[in-house]
Amino acid sequence: MTSQTKPIKKVVLAYSGGLDTSIILKWLQQTYGAEVVTFTADLGQGEELEPARAKALMLGIKPENIYIEDLREEFVRDYVFPMFRANALYEGIYLLGTSIARPLISKRQIEIARATGADAVCHGATGKGNDQVRFELSYYALEPSIRIIAPWRDWSFKSREDLIAFAEQNQIPIAKDKRGEAPFSVDANLLHSSSEGKVLEDPNVEPPQYVFQRTVSPEEAPDKPTVITIGFKQGDAVSINGTPMSPATILATLNDYGRENGIGRVDLVENRFVGMKSRGIYETPGGTILWHAHRAIESITLDRGAMHLKDELMPRYAELVYYGFWFSPEREMLQAAIDKSQEHVEGVVTLKLYKGNVIVTGRESPKSLYSSTLVTFEDDKGAYDQKDAAGFIKLNALRLRTLGQRDRQG
Amino acid sequence: MTSQTKPIKKVVLAYSGGLDTSIILKWLQQTYGAEVVTFTADLGQGEELEPARAKALMLGIKPENIYIEDLREEFVRDYVFPMFRANALYEGIYLLGTSIARPLISKRQIEIARATGADAVCHGATGKGNDQVRFELSYYALEPSIRIIAPWRDWSFKSREDLIAFAEQNQIPIAKDKRGEAPFSVDANLLHSSSEGKVLEDPNVEPPQYVFQRTVSPEEAPDKPTVITIGFKQGDAVSINGTPMSPATILATLNDYGRENGIGRVDLVENRFVGMKSRGIYETPGGTILWHAHRAIESITLDRGAMHLKDELMPRYAELVYYGFWFSPEREMLQAAIDKSQEHVEGVVTLKLYKGNVIVTGRESPKSLYSSTLVTFEDDKGAYDQKDAAGFIKLNALRLRTLGQRDRQG
Amino acid sequence: MTSQTKPIKKVVLAYSGGLDTSIILKWLQQTYGAEVVTFTADLGQGEELEPARAKALMLGIKPENIYIEDLREEFVRDYVFPMFRANALYEGIYLLGTSIARPLISKRQIEIARATGADAVCHGATGKGNDQVRFELSYYALEPSIRIIAPWRDWSFKSREDLIAFAEQNQIPIAKDKRGEAPFSVDANLLHSSSEGKVLEDPNVEPPQYVFQRTVSPEEAPDKPTVITIGFKQGDAVSINGTPMSPATILATLNDYGRENGIGRVDLVENRFVGMKSRGIYETPGGTILWHAHRAIESITLDRGAMHLKDELMPRYAELVYYGFWFSPEREMLQAAIDKSQEHVEGVVTLKLYKGNVIVTGRESPKSLYSSTLVTFEDDKGAYDQKDAAGFIKLNALRLRTLGQRDRQG
Amino acid sequence: MTSQTKPIKKVVLAYSGGLDTSIILKWLQQTYGAEVVTFTADLGQGEELEPARAKALMLGIKPENIYIEDLREEFVRDYVFPMFRANALYEGIYLLGTSIARPLISKRQIEIARATGADAVCHGATGKGNDQVRFELSYYALEPSIRIIAPWRDWSFKSREDLIAFAEQNQIPIAKDKRGEAPFSVDANLLHSSSEGKVLEDPNVEPPQYVFQRTVSPEEAPDKPTVITIGFKQGDAVSINGTPMSPATILATLNDYGRENGIGRVDLVENRFVGMKSRGIYETPGGTILWHAHRAIESITLDRGAMHLKDELMPRYAELVYYGFWFSPEREMLQAAIDKSQEHVEGVVTLKLYKGNVIVTGRESPKSLYSSTLVTFEDDKGAYDQKDAAGFIKLNALRLRTLGQRDRQG
Repeated sequence: MTSQTKPIKKVVLAYSGGLDTSIILKWLQQTYGAEVVTFTADLGQGEELEPARAKALMLGIKPENIYIEDLREEFVRDYVFPMFRANALYEGIYLLGTSIARPLISKRQIEIARATGADAVCHGATGKGNDQVRFELSYYALEPSIRIIAPWRDWSFKSREDLIAFAEQNQIPIAKDKRGEAPFSVDANLLHSSSEGKVLEDPNVEPPQYVFQRTVSPEEAPDKPTVITIGFKQGDAVSINGTPMSPATILATLNDYGRENGIGRVDLVENRFVGMKSRGIYETPGGTILWHAHRAIESITLDRGAMHLKDELMPRYAELVYYGFWFSPEREMLQAAIDKSQEHVEGVVTLKLYKGNVIVTGRESPKSLYSSTLVTFEDDKGAYDQKDAAGFIKLNALRLRTLGQRDRQG
Repeated sequence: MTSQTKPIKKVVLAYSGGLDTSIILKWLQQTYGAEVVTFTADLGQGEELEPARAKALMLGIKPENIYIEDLREEFVRDYVFPMFRANALYEGIYLLGTSIARPLISKRQIEIARATGADAVCHGATGKGNDQVRFELSYYALEPSIRIIAPWRDWSFKSREDLIAFAEQNQIPIAKDKRGEAPFSVDANLLHSSSEGKVLEDPNVEPPQYVFQRTVSPEEAPDKPTVITIGFKQGDAVSINGTPMSPATILATLNDYGRENGIGRVDLVENRFVGMKSRGIYETPGGTILWHAHRAIESITLDRGAMHLKDELMPRYAELVYYGFWFSPEREMLQAAIDKSQEHVEGVVTLKLYKGNVIVTGRESPKSLYSSTLVTFEDDKGAYDQKDAAGFIKLNALRLRTLGQRDRQG
Repeated sequence: MTSQTKPIKKVVLAYSGGLDTSIILKWLQQTYGAEVVTFTADLGQGEELEPARAKALMLGIKPENIYIEDLREEFVRDYVFPMFRANALYEGIYLLGTSIARPLISKRQIEIARATGADAVCHGATGKGNDQVRFELSYYALEPSIRIIAPWRDWSFKSREDLIAFAEQNQIPIAKDKRGEAPFSVDANLLHSSSEGKVLEDPNVEPPQYVFQRTVSPEEAPDKPTVITIGFKQGDAVSINGTPMSPATILATLNDYGRENGIGRVDLVENRFVGMKSRGIYETPGGTILWHAHRAIESITLDRGAMHLKDELMPRYAELVYYGFWFSPEREMLQAAIDKSQEHVEGVVTLKLYKGNVIVTGRESPKSLYSSTLVTFEDDKGAYDQKDAAGFIKLNALRLRTLGQRDRQG
Repeated sequence: MTSQTKPIKKVVLAYSGGLDTSIILKWLQQTYGAEVVTFTADLGQGEELEPARAKALMLGIKPENIYIEDLREEFVRDYVFPMFRANALYEGIYLLGTSIARPLISKRQIEIARATGADAVCHGATGKGNDQVRFELSYYALEPSIRIIAPWRDWSFKSREDLIAFAEQNQIPIAKDKRGEAPFSVDANLLHSSSEGKVLEDPNVEPPQYVFQRTVSPEEAPDKPTVITIGFKQGDAVSINGTPMSPATILATLNDYGRENGIGRVDLVENRFVGMKSRGIYETPGGTILWHAHRAIESITLDRGAMHLKDELMPRYAELVYYGFWFSPEREMLQAAIDKSQEHVEGVVTLKLYKGNVIVTGRESPKSLYSSTLVTFEDDKGAYDQKDAAGFIKLNALRLRTLGQRDRQG
């Protein structure tokens, strides 16, 4: 859309403060002669952010070009919760913990680019994964003429050794354990942590226990169940054990419950948008609890027509989120449909957490559509006339009978 | 289609040998003056069938009118397995254990009606449930002019006492524990057992432990995991721990593993086809293991396009099975699509069973589409050119960029 | 869900003023001893309403119980237009002209029932058609405890002669041409007129020309094309030939254009919700023009993702409208998704109307997403880099290549 | 998958014999030093093939490397007809005439590559269109390690003048009218011809009449209708006016009927897979007639469940064909579902063709599911009990009533 030949003047880098993005930072300065703006966000990954500031300063970033933000509430409220309203599961299993974080990071990078007059953005995702797609589709959707730098696709480094050498040449501090290659790669935020690569590459080999970061194993979990309740309002969790909490606090609290009880581990071979299969280990303790609780509260407050339509739309919704089309008209259309259904999804779900199991033991709601009067085997006082079933079946069968007669003649 | 006014001469009754269907048997004889043919099938419900023969004889059924059949292999091979190829879950959770048994029973009733020259069939399902629909849609699809008798909708008995009184008047033996009303009602076959009604009617009250029949609770399950492997061929399980087994043996064996390890309990509020919500407790130990194993073998052998299409079609497929449309063109169309996808779904899945958890720890296949060469973080020797990702993203983004420019002007 | 045994005190009848609904009126008075409230609506069927008032008075209805309303604007604005945003076609062809009128009539009947304290509503649809379902589902959705009277299913009249005899006994005036049976039955409103039954029952016989009421045949239409423009805003037509018009005026004007040019005739065998196939002749002159125009304006203003999602959802939406589920959560969810997509659907479409043809010859919009710069065969000044296509194809092909290699080994 | 650095030895070129592909031919010889195999197919585009042979020889192609084939029957039987079973329309309108030809050409190129030991294939599609994607996805699916040459993306020619200069330097004959740029570009085969580009680029300007190649305009068509019948068997057309014909003869004959009667013109703005909107003029005379006839024969022979499922799957199927995923598991799954539904789609449809209109006037079938007995307003002798409708409606309404009660309380 715009010529790609103009020099880049200022670039907003998604900066973690770690070795890899520090190398990118230096490489950007050297390759483009561009001013670098660093953006470091707390999405609940569990790392301190201030060291990133110190490191950025050390690498020559101007103080006014360092953005450090706590986005945890926005992340859960505007991204995680809307997605959970859809009961989204990618390929039947994956709760999309990495996918859902990318649009928010992208959005803030674009906003910072506007605020600082930057003409480019940069991310640290590799050229084989989905994240590059998620970042870049979001960037482009929000700012069609933005320049995008994806160093892992562009630079000439060929190996870990090349990167370390570059770091050393440029006085980038290298933690001891970062010299060699990590045995697997990790992504984390308040919703989940994922691990993939290297020691996990053979899908027929069980992941070693040291891969797991956020949950005890079911075997190590307590021998006694933990019982909790989650309150919902308009499809979103609003309280735990009767205590109202903010979205991020809800998820953090559920993470604690899940971690202790060995909940939310998934070992999956999934299909990437870029075309290959990959094996991932995900830990989504709080999200797993939330998914079950949300379905349970829907089970008594959502009409059948709404629920079945949601179930049919869900795989598409999950695919869109996974592929990186959060900021697309079709995701927004599906969200509008889903949100429309959640108006009366409220009430309280009781759950028993036990060694990897999330067991729904109760659900109640002032908006319940469950009627024991209708369903009872006992006298229902005329609420339902069993004779109606005969006509219902007869007309549902009519086309099948016509068909049966035809096929018989065939 | 045919006049309903002709007298019924002979009726094929789905007969369990229990009190309720014995009452129906007598009621049919008295109400219609019709000859009754009893059909008792072993679908793995775990009850002896010969007592049904003795009882039928005692109630005046001619020996040649008593059909007792072991349908377990046909049930699993032609009904359960095709459904599991679809990964079918009703409302995200229910493995359709009751639904899938009805079409086979109906089909055999119709075949026996043809063989014996019967003009009617009869089932013992109530007028509030889904089973009446499943039975009758199947009857009508297979034999459009059949007469159907649904005593629970038609007779004048108003209470348990009325039924007991009728039984006593007609010398139908009544087991002691059948005099009063059961605290809940049960359906069982090789795939699952379900419990509903009475003590289970409040969805906010945890089911009492005595409801469960087929599984120990996760708490009671062994403290050590059990590791098994399941072999697949064309989408169906064909072996356990390397030993080839028949379909019914596979399911029975998985039921044993599941029972011991507390696997497959579901406590659900579901939407019935007849329009109300009901609460059901399902135990599907072997089916739950099989579902996870099937998805795992698909994860390495099924192409992304096929898998995502299957995932989108699945809710509809499950709805059709649940509603009773097994013998419908649309279910058969979906089955054709699903079966087409399963040609190469073969290999071996390793599972760890532990206190309610089914943990996939390995999957391998001679038909695997997983390529560690493609996915590796290390040198892939040119299998994948990261530069391609740039063009891939650019063209995927093109419409979003055009849109972004338009909306900006808006 | 209230007892059906209480006597009915007051009933709101959908009353056309014609013979059939006059018979129903009398029959209601006699059968239920109930006070009758008549509701006569102008939905553009092209009949005077005041004669209905006179006739109702003559049949003993109190003046305050006679409701006569012009609903044309509400009909088009709140029912027809939202449906056209979806491009709804039932079974690929039918523009749903009858289906879409029923919810509005039902809604007003329920509102009048509330206003007048009536405990029942009554419609004149037969027991074989879809309309009974559409009326009654709407009644029940809006007023769950309403009593519904469907005389055609309930009364004991067996033939036209019986009805005429009843009319004569009750001093109901009978127009000469109503004594015998009509050669076909008609429904009409501002969107369409439909004809079915009797002389139309053989789907292999062309309908006689006298069946058509609202259009000249293509053969009779002028030999010169008529060119018009339609302006759109947020997905709805707002002007014709540059002149802003109200929704009903738009549709009426398009009807005139369509009628003269032989546009909008459909001869269809369709599948009714009650289970049988029926043959209908529909004339939807204005609606047919509108449908083409709406797709044309969408073609330049709607993103591909939005359009394809709309196309996939459309058959379900149309089915819901046809079946009578207008007032259902799932229709409302789909509507929310569709409406979300229409925000920027604005601009002007030029159409040539000629002997049955609606030919789009131009479309323009301030919100156009069409870019001749992008698409041109000539120099596009870097808007699109053809090299990107290589990467795009390579990654889209990756899974197919992996599959091809696997299948080769197979 | 294979290294791209090895020299190319032999390449199979999709060769029309025209100027552009002759330039490509020479360019391949010069750029790669490769032996060129030409493949020229008759798909009904209406051009003589033998001149292509003479030209290829003249350009130095060995006689044994010249493949000229008549693929019309295979094209219609194995590509067009399966697609018409699906009633496929892209974006509601486009009959996919270009899209469906590409997989067959690709398949033959790959087969010829195997037969001749070629290591590469080459097509003449540009870098902005869908055809490059369709060709290349098909190549890769069928032969994952094939090398693909797409000259329009790769060569350094920048303008028409460059190409003409290259042709002159290389003694490639240049027809007079090919010196300048064509006012629009054309693709043609037995199903359709398409025109796009240049004079058609403004979507608000009506296409000039000289663009149309294959149909008279409705205005020029005869003043008298033409009546024809089409016979179907298993979803495919098998006869016209009672005369059995081969697939290609059927389509050619329908093209004649359509051409004369001004049928099958479409003027469309569509969304390309590569991300931009483009404007196309399509003429599909025979296909348009066939589409209407197929829906008509389905209307009496296809069950509602099958038809509605087909309608819901159709947009996805059309998208897959348009995007180039003919040889994909998901298209094959959908085809399996569709083909399953066509078993009894047989009978005869009568059509009136008149100035652009395709008017269905009759349909009959030995497998008809239409029953005038069921649908009649007159006495149906008990085929349908109107009382059944009451129960049907009551149970369909049950969830809506429950919902209405709940929402009232809300």
